[in-house]
Amino acid sequence: MDKVEVDLASGEQFSPAFRAISPDCVVPVLELDDGTHINEVLAICQYLEEIYPEPTLFGSTPKERATAVMWSTKVEQQGLVGMRDAFRNSAKGLRGHALTGPVAYEQIPELAERGQQQVVTFFESLELQLEGNEYVAGDYFSIADITALVFVDFARWLKIDFPDDAVYLRPWYDAVSARPSANA
Amino acid sequence: MDKVEVDLASGEQFSPAFRAISPDCVVPVLELDDGTHINEVLAICQYLEEIYPEPTLFGSTPKERATAVMWSTKVEQQGLVGMRDAFRNSAKGLRGHALTGPVAYEQIPELAERGQQQVVTFFESLELQLEGNEYVAGDYFSIADITALVFVDFARWLKIDFPDDAVYLRPWYDAVSARPSANA
Repeated sequence: MDKVEVDLASGEQFSPAFRAISPDCVVPVLELDDGTHINEVLAICQYLEEIYPEPTLFGSTPKERATAVMWSTKVEQQGLVGMRDAFRNSAKGLRGHALTGPVAYEQIPELAERGQQQVVTFFESLELQLEGNEYVAGDYFSIADITALVFVDFARWLKIDFPDDAVYLRPWYDAVSARPSANA
Repeated sequence: MDKVEVDLASGEQFSPAFRAISPDCVVPVLELDDGTHINEVLAICQYLEEIYPEPTLFGSTPKERATAVMWSTKVEQQGLVGMRDAFRNSAKGLRGHALTGPVAYEQIPELAERGQQQVVTFFESLELQLEGNEYVAGDYFSIADITALVFVDFARWLKIDFPDDAVYLRPWYDAVSARPSANA
């Protein structure tokens, strides 16, 4: 599988050449052999899971797969979306780019604040889930752990850390981020 | 499969009994035989697809399934989220409930405006996609059509209609909404 870097810093995602591949101007994009482009993360991951089923990243039963998809979605929609709002509505370099894509949306300072609150709240949800489970979706490593690792690393980069009283988040984070693939 | 109604108008989704089932205070929730609760729409639909694979709502090949998931996600994240923002940040009855869930988020009027713009923009994306495809994900009826039908019906309820110059949206809408299941 060839990997092609897109230079987001210089705005390559808005170029006509890249928009022909990803009209939403977002990465990542998976190009299939027949030229079809898939540019939504979950769709890409599920496609790759079908093509390379071992080791599984979604689980081994319908229930496990549903739980992994549910938790990965929660991390994205509650955690990562809050982070995106916090970041894109406050970073000076992203004025006029409060959302990804070709349309210019102005920053909304109140939305940056709300995003911060969502991140803090989602840390609490994750702590609660990890209280009863070794991994985010249960007793198996899954796509939900990968999405959650991205969430935590991004949050800490934004200087929002684990809640002080978190007991379960840290050992989960240490275990998951120590996996060789976490540094790939 | 038993169906249990949750009275959102009276706030039943915030009751301790329902929060034990759906901590995010959202519907729908699928309860599995072992008591597991799945409360994310895509996870529920994919679980049901596994249990009842015929007729398929996701497609018959890895490529078709990836395309259906991609488009259903786009409808949700670009169309329905814009609608949610437009509605929840302006409706008088939803003050303090700009997001679903147990945390009180105040309305942000600028976000209501942005949501309206997103809905209009997403109608254009959908029109463009339907120019080259009979259905949203290609030449087969899929979950993406169902999600898009919800989007259009909700938009029209909010008095945002097809763009005047839309050519492909209307016949698609008429065909999809005429299916017996659309009135189930």
